[in-house]
Amino acid sequence: MALITSPNNRYVKLARSLQDRSWREKKGLYLIEGIHLLEEALQAGTSLEVVLHSPRIFTTSRGEKLVAGLQRAGYQCLAVTEELMAGISTTMTPPGIVAVAPMQAKNLAELLAVTSPLHSPPLFIIAAGIQDPGNLGTIWRTALGAGATGLILTRGCVDPYNPKVVRSAMGATFRLPVAGGVEPALLARKLQDAGLKLVVADVGAPLTLWQVDLRPPLALIVGSENHGPGPELLAAATERVGIPLVGPVDSLNAAVAAALLLYEALRQRQGV
Amino acid sequence: MALITSPNNRYVKLARSLQDRSWREKKGLYLIEGIHLLEEALQAGTSLEVVLHSPRIFTTSRGEKLVAGLQRAGYQCLAVTEELMAGISTTMTPPGIVAVAPMQAKNLAELLAVTSPLHSPPLFIIAAGIQDPGNLGTIWRTALGAGATGLILTRGCVDPYNPKVVRSAMGATFRLPVAGGVEPALLARKLQDAGLKLVVADVGAPLTLWQVDLRPPLALIVGSENHGPGPELLAAATERVGIPLVGPVDSLNAAVAAALLLYEALRQRQGV
Repeated sequence: MALITSPNNRYVKLARSLQDRSWREKKGLYLIEGIHLLEEALQAGTSLEVVLHSPRIFTTSRGEKLVAGLQRAGYQCLAVTEELMAGISTTMTPPGIVAVAPMQAKNLAELLAVTSPLHSPPLFIIAAGIQDPGNLGTIWRTALGAGATGLILTRGCVDPYNPKVVRSAMGATFRLPVAGGVEPALLARKLQDAGLKLVVADVGAPLTLWQVDLRPPLALIVGSENHGPGPELLAAATERVGIPLVGPVDSLNAAVAAALLLYEALRQRQGV
Repeated sequence: MALITSPNNRYVKLARSLQDRSWREKKGLYLIEGIHLLEEALQAGTSLEVVLHSPRIFTTSRGEKLVAGLQRAGYQCLAVTEELMAGISTTMTPPGIVAVAPMQAKNLAELLAVTSPLHSPPLFIIAAGIQDPGNLGTIWRTALGAGATGLILTRGCVDPYNPKVVRSAMGATFRLPVAGGVEPALLARKLQDAGLKLVVADVGAPLTLWQVDLRPPLALIVGSENHGPGPELLAAATERVGIPLVGPVDSLNAAVAAALLLYEALRQRQGV
């Protein structure tokens, strides 16, 4: 197989450019990095423009098997030098394999029309102004685990295709549909129009998550730790719920708060 | 107030050395960084060796108030140049204020003797081999929120006084007691001797967290996502519990799993 050695190769240049949000948005493409994520992408049948790997990928049987699987599935796989891989990668330790993939984000109307095979009543999770990439990725992963229907991001959230978000989501990127950049006032209206109950996590709320019925078609709204869910979504809330804080802490991590609400909805829906 | 300008000042050298785990352990000291954490430390009455701040701290009224409060409480506060502050800080944006504090870790016997004012039945959370600093800090913070009695770390966990752990714990460092570096087989025996029910989070467990009684005196054990809780603690488990995964994910983030277990214990104990 021909080894690409030039930094001017168009795929190498393309992959490297995707470290940058503005280039990702211009091209509608993002970067998937590392063996685990590419195993997940392969299993999910994710669409990929190109896979780039360095010789190092063949030093483990897991890496070898992955490349063979990707080739068998018809993905275009190209070999690049370790040096080029290091320039493409966003991690300290370059992973030996990356792929360029088309973003799959939906618009809000498409996302709200998704029907979940897992829950009969819809369960959307809204990340309102979440800026920490690790938190957003963890929310995405947990939402998939808890059987949510889709993830909606307000304008002001971190880019869902930021490499750190993709890493923390651990493959949920390929499985749980997302809509991003939604303006909060519009979102509040559309959620109400869709007949969803709007439940907003709010530190000072009088009711706890255990006291609110989370079984109806639902939008769970979690804001950032610093700025909360914002005035538009708070005003539109059907119910505000708090998570009890027994010890002297001001708030919980946003991904933890989202997880507690998502799993409380699942518990109630399973009738446990 | 005299401004310290020399990198050879003994407090500056001391603070800078604490970026390094081996120096932290040699000195028994660690670094607290930033306005929020120092507000928490002040409120908790945490013991501090010295506070170092740069002129920038006085550019906000919150910073000014903090330094005044620390001085009033009798802490030694020294001014250093911005350049020295940048050398001490472990963050990209130096915070303008740091403190050197004595570690407060207990040994296992001391920790197991702690009685919680919040819950009558003890509730210990065991982090087994958790290496991600953000996850460990988040577990600490959530455990305090959920009213846990104490945090126990097995040997092989990240250092609880790692600056990233301290940042993610958001002040729980000063409030919820910790014991670190405990050998798993010894830990299993001591938890049993203390009359605690050992509940281990385990992906393949037949029972879910909603099916297990978490009201008795309890040790909740959460392992790392890659290596699990380890054979000694799994073997000693009174009960293994799983968190239902409805969507196609292999596991949840360790801090999320810990939060779900801690809050399920709280829910059961509150009789909701």
